[in-house]
Formats: sequence, C-alpha cells, structure tokens
Amino acid sequence: MSMNSFGHLFRFTTWGESHGPALGATIDGCPPNVPLTPEMLQQWLDKRRPGQNKNMTQRNEPDAVKILSGVFEGKTTGTPIQLMIENTDQRSKDYGDIANTFRPGHADITYYQKYGNRDYRGGGRSSARETAARVAAGGIAREAIKALVPGLEIKGYMVAMGEMEIDRTRFDWDAIDKNDFWIPDSAAVQNWEDYLQDLRKAHDSVGAIVEIVARGVPAGIGAPIYGKLDTELAAAMMSINAVKGVEIGEGMNAARLKGSQNADEIFLGNDGAPVYSSNHAGGILGGISSGQDVVVRFAVKPTSSILTPRQSIRKDGSSAEVITKGRHDPCVGIRAVPVGEAMMACVILDHLLLHRGQIGVNQGIIG
Amino acid sequence: MSMNSFGHLFRFTTWGESHGPALGATIDGCPPNVPLTPEMLQQWLDKRRPGQNKNMTQRNEPDAVKILSGVFEGKTTGTPIQLMIENTDQRSKDYGDIANTFRPGHADITYYQKYGNRDYRGGGRSSARETAARVAAGGIAREAIKALVPGLEIKGYMVAMGEMEIDRTRFDWDAIDKNDFWIPDSAAVQNWEDYLQDLRKAHDSVGAIVEIVARGVPAGIGAPIYGKLDTELAAAMMSINAVKGVEIGEGMNAARLKGSQNADEIFLGNDGAPVYSSNHAGGILGGISSGQDVVVRFAVKPTSSILTPRQSIRKDGSSAEVITKGRHDPCVGIRAVPVGEAMMACVILDHLLLHRGQIGVNQGIIG
Amino acid sequence: MSMNSFGHLFRFTTWGESHGPALGATIDGCPPNVPLTPEMLQQWLDKRRPGQNKNMTQRNEPDAVKILSGVFEGKTTGTPIQLMIENTDQRSKDYGDIANTFRPGHADITYYQKYGNRDYRGGGRSSARETAARVAAGGIAREAIKALVPGLEIKGYMVAMGEMEIDRTRFDWDAIDKNDFWIPDSAAVQNWEDYLQDLRKAHDSVGAIVEIVARGVPAGIGAPIYGKLDTELAAAMMSINAVKGVEIGEGMNAARLKGSQNADEIFLGNDGAPVYSSNHAGGILGGISSGQDVVVRFAVKPTSSILTPRQSIRKDGSSAEVITKGRHDPCVGIRAVPVGEAMMACVILDHLLLHRGQIGVNQGIIG
Amino acid sequence: MSMNSFGHLFRFTTWGESHGPALGATIDGCPPNVPLTPEMLQQWLDKRRPGQNKNMTQRNEPDAVKILSGVFEGKTTGTPIQLMIENTDQRSKDYGDIANTFRPGHADITYYQKYGNRDYRGGGRSSARETAARVAAGGIAREAIKALVPGLEIKGYMVAMGEMEIDRTRFDWDAIDKNDFWIPDSAAVQNWEDYLQDLRKAHDSVGAIVEIVARGVPAGIGAPIYGKLDTELAAAMMSINAVKGVEIGEGMNAARLKGSQNADEIFLGNDGAPVYSSNHAGGILGGISSGQDVVVRFAVKPTSSILTPRQSIRKDGSSAEVITKGRHDPCVGIRAVPVGEAMMACVILDHLLLHRGQIGVNQGIIG
Repeated sequence: MSMNSFGHLFRFTTWGESHGPALGATIDGCPPNVPLTPEMLQQWLDKRRPGQNKNMTQRNEPDAVKILSGVFEGKTTGTPIQLMIENTDQRSKDYGDIANTFRPGHADITYYQKYGNRDYRGGGRSSARETAARVAAGGIAREAIKALVPGLEIKGYMVAMGEMEIDRTRFDWDAIDKNDFWIPDSAAVQNWEDYLQDLRKAHDSVGAIVEIVARGVPAGIGAPIYGKLDTELAAAMMSINAVKGVEIGEGMNAARLKGSQNADEIFLGNDGAPVYSSNHAGGILGGISSGQDVVVRFAVKPTSSILTPRQSIRKDGSSAEVITKGRHDPCVGIRAVPVGEAMMACVILDHLLLHRGQIGVNQGIIG
Repeated sequence: MSMNSFGHLFRFTTWGESHGPALGATIDGCPPNVPLTPEMLQQWLDKRRPGQNKNMTQRNEPDAVKILSGVFEGKTTGTPIQLMIENTDQRSKDYGDIANTFRPGHADITYYQKYGNRDYRGGGRSSARETAARVAAGGIAREAIKALVPGLEIKGYMVAMGEMEIDRTRFDWDAIDKNDFWIPDSAAVQNWEDYLQDLRKAHDSVGAIVEIVARGVPAGIGAPIYGKLDTELAAAMMSINAVKGVEIGEGMNAARLKGSQNADEIFLGNDGAPVYSSNHAGGILGGISSGQDVVVRFAVKPTSSILTPRQSIRKDGSSAEVITKGRHDPCVGIRAVPVGEAMMACVILDHLLLHRGQIGVNQGIIG
Repeated sequence: MSMNSFGHLFRFTTWGESHGPALGATIDGCPPNVPLTPEMLQQWLDKRRPGQNKNMTQRNEPDAVKILSGVFEGKTTGTPIQLMIENTDQRSKDYGDIANTFRPGHADITYYQKYGNRDYRGGGRSSARETAARVAAGGIAREAIKALVPGLEIKGYMVAMGEMEIDRTRFDWDAIDKNDFWIPDSAAVQNWEDYLQDLRKAHDSVGAIVEIVARGVPAGIGAPIYGKLDTELAAAMMSINAVKGVEIGEGMNAARLKGSQNADEIFLGNDGAPVYSSNHAGGILGGISSGQDVVVRFAVKPTSSILTPRQSIRKDGSSAEVITKGRHDPCVGIRAVPVGEAMMACVILDHLLLHRGQIGVNQGIIG
Repeated sequence: MSMNSFGHLFRFTTWGESHGPALGATIDGCPPNVPLTPEMLQQWLDKRRPGQNKNMTQRNEPDAVKILSGVFEGKTTGTPIQLMIENTDQRSKDYGDIANTFRPGHADITYYQKYGNRDYRGGGRSSARETAARVAAGGIAREAIKALVPGLEIKGYMVAMGEMEIDRTRFDWDAIDKNDFWIPDSAAVQNWEDYLQDLRKAHDSVGAIVEIVARGVPAGIGAPIYGKLDTELAAAMMSINAVKGVEIGEGMNAARLKGSQNADEIFLGNDGAPVYSSNHAGGILGGISSGQDVVVRFAVKPTSSILTPRQSIRKDGSSAEVITKGRHDPCVGIRAVPVGEAMMACVILDHLLLHRGQIGVNQGIIG
C-alpha cells in the first residue's frame, strides 16, 4: 500500500531509516524539461540540516543529496527522479537498554505493536530524519512551480514557541530569513533564544507553532470534496513528525467568531480579479483557492527526547526510567519550518498540475 | 481523478448536488457478510437531518436512504454498495439575483473560477447536504466495525460554541445523546440554547468545536508515514464543510507545553497491555494507535448564510449586497457531530482492514 | 479498495447486480463544460442492449439511463456524474436448484469461495449486465473526447467467430454499422448468421475475436512503465466478462516474426509528422501513442450458459448436471463490441487528460 | 502520477535509466518479519542477467542488488524497502548519430513526442534494463509468499520462438531449469539453439511466447470487476518491454471453441475441494482464482535492435538508415521468463494480502 507516498500527479514516496545506509525519495510525475541540479535541492536541505547553530542538535550530517535518475543534461525527463541522501554520521554505539525500552512520546511501542519488530537505532523509520527526503522533494516542486507560475512564493516562519508569541503588528516578511528561528521580527530574536537556552539548560524542551504562506497561488486550484486544497494541506502538515494540530486561515479560533465577523467580503479589483476585505478563509473557499494568500498553521509538540527522567516499560514488561541522552533539538519547530514549506510546495504543485488545461475555464477574471 | 472518494480498503465516493434529483455514496471494499439494512443507516441520517428542533434549519427532508446494490438477503456481499437519498424538498423557486451573485464565505466564486460554471441551486455540490452521504457511509462502517471489533465505540460531542465552552470537570458521557447540542453536560444545555437563540434573533451565526472519541481501538492500527492515523483523521475532518482546524490529543495547545509536561508515561497494566499516565498524544504515536482513546477535535466556522447584509460582486463584476434568506442553521457545529463520527468510523474501519492478518504480530501484549 | 473502479483522471466505478433494483456508474473526473444529455448515452446502450435481433438473448431491458448528478443546464459541471439504469425485467421466478448449484464456466463457485456468499440471481455482480454501466461511462468519454480532439474516431468490429473469420482484403469500414455482427464485410453477414443459428439450434455457443481501433489519437499519450497505453488497454479489455486474451497490433503473432519483418519503418510526412511503412506496433511504442491507429483485439470465450448438460457440484458437495435454460446470447462477442469501444474511449480520454498542458512539449511535429 | 508503480497492497515503483548511475525499486507494503537478504534476490537477477550464455547479449553487468532500507536484523520491518542496482558497464562512447535518430520499433520517437526530450543513452528509461528492478521486487514477493502460502510455486518457460514450438506431450517441468531457453523439453534444446544462432548470423532477431504458471494458489483471490486476477496479470505482462499479447488459459484460441468444448466441468475432490475436468479457464473464473493452476502466456516481439538496415528519420526530419550495432539479444523472450515470473509473484502476493482475514469466508472447502 502506498502509505509512504504523498500526492496525486506529483507523487513522492520516501524511504529509509535514521541509521540505515541511506534515505531518500522517489518522485513520480514531475513535469519534463524543468531545469534541475543537486545544488537547487541542497539549499533547502541545508536550511533543515541539524548542527547549524546552537538552537539545534549538534549531530553533524552533511545531508548531501544525489540525483540517481530522471534528470538528463540538466533537465527533468518526465520519468521517476530518485533522490538519495547517505547517512554518514552513524556513530557506532551500544544501544544497550534503549533497544528494549519504549521511550515515552515516541513511536517505539506502537511500531512494535503494529509490526512485531522495531528498528531501535535512532527511531528507525519513525525518526524525523525522514523529513530530509521531503525537503528534497519539495525543492523539486519549487523548481517545477517556478516553470509553471513564475511569481508564486512559499515561505514559513514560527509564530509561537512555548510562552513566546510573535507580535503581528511588527510582522516583517524580510526578517524571516535573517534569524535562526525564522521569525518575522528581528527585535524578538534575542528573547526567543534566551528562552530556549534556559529550557535546554533545564533539560527540557518546548512546542511551537509554524505558519506557512503561499503567495501568488492562482484562483481555482484544489478540488472538492475529499481532495480539497485545505484537506490536502491538513494531511500534508499532520504527516510531519510531532505535529498535533493544523489550521487554515482563522483555524480553531473560527469557533469563537460570529458569521458577521468571519465573512470575507468581496470587491472587484482594478485588474478585474476579485479582492477581499479580509482573509479569515486562509485563501481557500470550498476546497478551492481564491487567489488570496494560502495560509496554514501547525503546532508541534515539545521534543519527547529530554534529559528529564520519565517512566516507561521494557519489552519484557519491566519498569524503566528513560532519560534520552544524545543530540536532540530542544524545539523541533525550528526545523519544521523548511519541512512545512516543502509540503506546501508539493501540494501546490500537485494541484497546479491537476488543474492544467481545463476546458472553457475562466482564470478568475470577472466582468 | 478520485477527488470525491475517501479511504483505501473501505473506500467511498459521494455524488450529488443539493438540489439535483438525488445524492448518495458508492462504497467499494466493505467486507462481505456484514448484516445491513436501510434502518441501520437511517438512525444516523436522522441524527444529522435538518428540521429536528429549533436550533436547526427547518428545511424538511426525510433523507430516506435506499440500498441499490451490494446487499443480498440482509447481508453485504463484498461488492459495491450504492446508497441513494432522493431530494424531496426541492422548493421550486426563483433564484433571481443569487444565480449571478457570489455569496461571501461560500464556494460560489471559487467553483466558478475553477470550473467556469456554477450550479447555484443551494450551493450545488458544495452544499453541506453532501455530508448526508458520508453519514450513510459511516453507518455501514459502524456495522462492519461491530463485526470486527465488537466493543469499539465512537461518539462525538460539542465542546465549544462561540462564547460557550464545556466544563471538563462535569463531563458526562451519558448526557451526550440526551440533548439537542450533543454536549456532555445536561445542566449547560439551557445556556447554550439561549445563547444560540439570541444569535439567531440578531440575524447572526456562530462557530463551534466538535470532539470525536473512539474507545476500544486496538493498538497497532495506522501506518507511517503519509497514511498515519492522525494524518487520515486530519484529512477526514478537514474535508467536512466549514471546518478550519483539526487537532489530535493536545492539539494546538501542544505548542505551549514543555517536554516534561507532555510525555505520557507508560506502565504495565494488569492484563499485560500498556497503560499510560495521560493522553496528550490523543491515542496515536508515530501515526499508529496506542490502544488509548483516539481523540480528534475540529473547529467549524460560523455559517456564512446570514441575514446580516455583506458586500460582494456579481458575475458581471458589479457590486451586490448579499442577505441570505432561507432556512439555515445558526451553528453548523450541531449537525457536524454525526458527520465527524461517520468520518471517524470510516477511517477506523479502513485501518482495521489494512491491519488484518499481519504476519507474526503481537497485538499489544507486552511481557 | 477501488476494485470496481477504472481510470486515473477520468475514473468510473460501476455498481449493481443483474437482478437488483438498479445498476450504474459513478464517474469522477469528467472535465467541466462538456455538453451531455441522457440521449447521447442512450445510443450506445441501445447498441449493447439485449433483444435487438435474433442473434441476441431476447431478454427485453430498455436499459434507460438516468443522469442523477454532475450535469447542470445541459453541461457537465466537473463534479461526479451518477448514472443509473433501473432493472425492469426482473422476472419473478423460482431459482430452485440453481441457487445451490455452481454453473461450470461461471463465477458462481469462486465468488462463493471468496466471499462466503453468492447472489445467485442471474449471476449477481458477475453478470455481463455490469457492462451496460461501462457502455454508459464510455458514452461520456466519447463526448469529452469530442471536445478535446474533434476528429478522433473509435470503432469496434468482430474479426472472428468460431470457424468464421473476416477476409482483410475485403475490409469495409462503412459496412460495420450496417449489420448485426458489426463485421466489416456486408457479403459475409449471411454466412455468419447461418453459422450462429446452427449453433444455437445445436444448443451450443461459440467464442469470438473483436478488434477495436482508435483513429486520430495524437502522438504522445500513454505513460511508461506501468501506465503504458497498451498496459491500460490490456487491463481494460481483460476486465470485460468472458475475455481470455488481448492483443496490441501484431499481437500473439509477433512471436512468429523476425525483427526484419516486424520493424515499422519511419518516414517524414508532408505535414512534418512521422509516417510509418506499416503498423505492427498497433500505434504504440514504449507505451506511448505514435499517431498511428491504435489497434487492440480481444478474444471472448463461448457463452458458458448452454442447453447442453455439463457436470458440476452443489454447495453441499453433491453432483449436479447443469443445463442453463433462459435467454442467453449464443455468442457474447457481438455485444462485446460496444463494450470494447467504451473501454477504449475511457482509456483514451484518461490519457488525453493526463497529457494535457505538458511543459515544452512538441506535439509530434518533427523537422 | 504513479505511472511507474504497480500493485495495491504490495506496491513497487521502479526508477532509473539504462545508462544512469543506478536503477532500482521502491517497495511499499511488504509484510513485516519476512526473512530477507540480498542473496535471496540475487539468484533471480542472475537468471535475468545478460551475458550468461551465447544466446544472450554479452553486455556484462553484475547486476548486484543492494538493500538500502526496510530490512533490520535480516527481516523486513514493514517499512519501504529500497533496492538499488548500480550500472557498472556504462561504456563511455560516442553516441554520434544515434542521439538524433529515432530507431524503428523503439520508443525513441514517442518519448520525444511525449516529453519533448529524450535520453538516448541505451534507450534511457525505455530500456529493458528496467526489468532488473522488477525481478528484484519479484524476489521479495516470492519470499513473502513463502511465509504466507508455503507450497505455492511459480515457474515460467518458453513455449514458442519463431518457428520453434514446444511439444506439449513431452512437457517436463523439471527440464525447465536445466537449459538456457527455459523450455520444458531437454531434447528440443539443440534445435532451438541452432535456430537462434542461424538468425543471429543472419543479423536478425525473432519473437517468442512465454508461459508462466502459478501452482498452489488458494481459491478465492482476485477481485471483480476491474481488479480481476486476470486483469491484473494482463496489465502486469503487457507492461513488460516488447510484449504484444497476453492470454489467460485458453487465450485467443477461446474464440474458436464451442461452449460445450470450453466448459471446465466440476467434481468434488477427496479433500472436499472442487476438482475440474480441464483448465480452459486458466485457473480464474470471474476474476477470482479457482484453486487450479493459474496460467498466463505472453508474446514478445522480435528485438528491434538488429544489424539489418531499416529506414527512419532524424530529429531534424532528414532520412536515416539505422543499423543497431552493440550487444543485443536475438530473442528477448529468454530473458522475459524471469521477468514474467516476477510479475506473477507480485500480482499473486498482492492479492493474497488483499484477501487476508476476510469475515466468514470458507476457503474453498465445499460439502
């Protein structure tokens, strides 16, 4: 069953374990004639890569991606693209008690219950290292989008981390790429960093909220009823490790609003396309893009791998106290930013391809 | 493309428009030999049906379901089941200006932009009437689950509506089926009703949060990475009309927690199965069920069809003021409860079927 | 599981049993804005319909198709189209021993072995009545093809029936629609009819070979490796009741040829498109259309329902002698012609849709 | 789109080009806990491998398969298995005129028409080297089948090659593995070899017919209507390079039979399971296995790469005479044997998995 695959026309399957020889993604359905080099993908992998700054785990993986198929003379051919990232920093170590102990908050116990086995080396398939493959696939999606809809831009940023929250009145799109937290407010960075370092020193971790925005998405992509653009984004984001909630536009807060507050009123823009008084809808109506910014948010839980001892059990049923040593991010939300961007890119490309060449369709121009 | 289909092994496709001759669902993959009668499905349709009480639209549709195929001598045969619900209350009326006007907050404009056409009769395919077909499909899923895992129970209830919110300390599972709001607190019902009637009189509407719980789900169902149980539930719930956010377990609030708070510690139960100190995870670890209650929540936006005038445009680009007369629910959250339950039932059945008969698998018993 | 579905972008699911209340097809993915009326579909159903002449079963079903959804103001909307054909000629009868006996050559025994149950009324789901739903779906595909590639033509005809075989040197495309056997040679019709009536009087039946040709298919549709145009056509035709073999172009005879004989040499045509010296390939190279006629052939076995007694067993294991009375075609190949045409139309449309709007693609013009 | 994928629950995607760095298969859905080593797969790759004897191309590829994921401590984990075969014999050469010339009978021209580009190195993606990946995937399927249905056996053999045809009265199952042609008659081997060497010397090639049999397949696998076992086998075999026809049981010859001849009569066997008087059906009734041998045959066309000159055109439209030098099999049927076996194994496993754990099903025992 294609449980490790995502997408319809642009479809990728990820494979590989945290500590196996390699991991990667098989991409089927990338359009032909898209310029593609490993360097184009590497920039996004570098953004996700561990060990870049002190807010991240110091595990040092170059995460160098190789393109094994589907590209000839610098362009995609339209046949499957195989991406491979070799695991180079597989420290030889004694897993000892961990091999038989189920870490709380991890998938150790449920994988064991499902499969009757468990690859205990760094979480095996359930490790967040799998997201490197998505980021690479997302890099391909970005290049194909560029060829189809030149101005389309996708960007993610953190909006909350434990007690920290961004001030929307100070939102600065250009600040995002200039700090380690990908937050849209340069002045807040020091506070966020101090907060996180304190948590790390307290042997603890914290959750976060990430927002991903796609600007310049044409009206009319997406598809009712079960292939709605918001449905696919919800699935895309919920599939990321540690995610516990997904919101489109107003999100959970919509429950608190009245109909008179929530309506995005419609006007005619100068170019003949509709414009809206607000974007409570997050750019999606009835599962189809409206031409406004597509806005999705997701919450990641705090890293379960902490130095504070937690109670658990072993395979033989005996009690165990678990302290997860090793190199772990105190807040996985930081690295979830490029992963969320990649998933947004894959969903948008997939629906651009699904919508291409419709019969007699009016691309959003009214009047 | 199967954009109107949901599920893997238990797969349904819904069809039909709000004001066409009929709507329904085609179900492929229901196991054979499951006892099934229209009455078994009718009970859930009746729960969702409009016009039952004054908190709902007074549109009076009997929503009587017919089984056209796949059942012989009172049992499923294993071949496709066709369910049909005829639309009987199609009031003949003059749609007038509505046929050319895009209602704010509705899919009118995006359907028009996507397809270059629009069935303006009651929203056409984008109408929430489509959810009747899901509820019927969910009724089949419930019967099949009964045959596979007898004790498994699925129940939904509202937890918030505008300013109203349930008091978790007064949670009463048995109260849920005894009030029009499906809330787990009989004493709160009058307040909720007064609040909603005030809104209705003010020509307004309001959003809500619905929670769906599945009890007795065996450990080990679900599937990494893109077919995670939580991923599928997120897609299932986000596909419901008006839903803007989906949460599993702790949900968006996970962003505010520390790792030391969020860990569900593991102990050995008397029956040799694991027990947990808490359920922040919502019954799912790494996309696979842990045997705890599976808990999902979703927010619905306030009904966009209100009597308060909103600005919009017509197909010719001219300005229009929209007041939606007619019979509309002031809070669609109430009727979203059986829809959410149906989607939960479909996802659970699908994954029970996917997991059946694995080789050498240990059903959650440790020690 | 979507075992009752066919196609990728243009995807239909058939449902219904021979003697249930109705049967039909759910079509998801038909492009919007295609003109569509029941009459457009009825012509193809009438071609397949039983009881038209003495070479067919005299079961008299009007096979009137209703469109329940997906069409508004005479055009497809882009949402699912539900087609329903009510079963009107369900003669009330005593199935007697048949309900417990497995007819040789039928699916009675294997359905029972697979599902642990059996709808014995006229074969239930395994009846060739299911093909009426395909023919209706194929009628939609033909209308959509017309909108996309105006000149494309699809036609089927019989090329062999028992000892009868067409003389290719007398092939007459225009004769096909003018005789009850759909054969391309008017002068041969009487012989074929005499042959079949003799078999019928001898209480026997016979197999046949049907050929389906698509003319005007643009070069470049189809998709390696498992979605090849020939792969999809093989699946499409093999899925038709009674089919035991499928050939593309030269077919099984290719085994007897040498490479020097089989090569279709390539030349440049006056319009700049390639022309070929021959069409051993059947219009498909590497799974992709070349612009030549797409040619597929399939063999149907002789009807298993005959008046000549055959040995079998009952559900309780006892021996039974089976004579199938009732109204059966002595050669199902005749009615397989419109079914094969319908499947060809569905496959071609699906791949036209898959190919639309590729980036930087050269539609077959060389030089 | 998953055009490079095959299967439902056991699903593989192949990737890679003839002369790229590597090719392989991504397998999703293999059951957990199946013992698996590279050696288990290597035996089948060695059977398919070029250069083994003088009837094959002398291209010398070790075709050594690596398992990059999905196996831990010698057993499958249930997560995706990545298989990689590096291309070691990529002779550096000047492709010269071939890069711009379309070889007759090859996919060169249609790939160019579809994608607007072409990887001319050895046929790129359209090369039969892709089948190495299938053979490896089939090796995994065989191991999983062993764990599920121990006695099930799958074997392929040639039944015809040009003018050569096997004598069914001399059929010897044990002879198959003992000769270079995989034919079931040791005495015929020398004739076949002489015939093929004469063709090679005449700079020509020839087609062939391969038959694949699965013995011990339990009754009840397969699934109507579009997921029939015969439908899937037809697709599986037609997807193999050079295949032009597929037959089940009686195949195309069924067209020549009468109903009284074709019926496989049914009796009760000593073990309570049905036995049949004959196997015209090829082990499949209504798309579902009957417990008899499953028999499929396919024809491969003669190799298009021959030393005899053929007319063609170049990208610029000019005429070209094509002689394909290099290392090519005079009859690709020989190497198609293990490929057909692999596809049979994949289809059988997939349907065994789909059928597992049905409710109230009677595994073929009658009475």
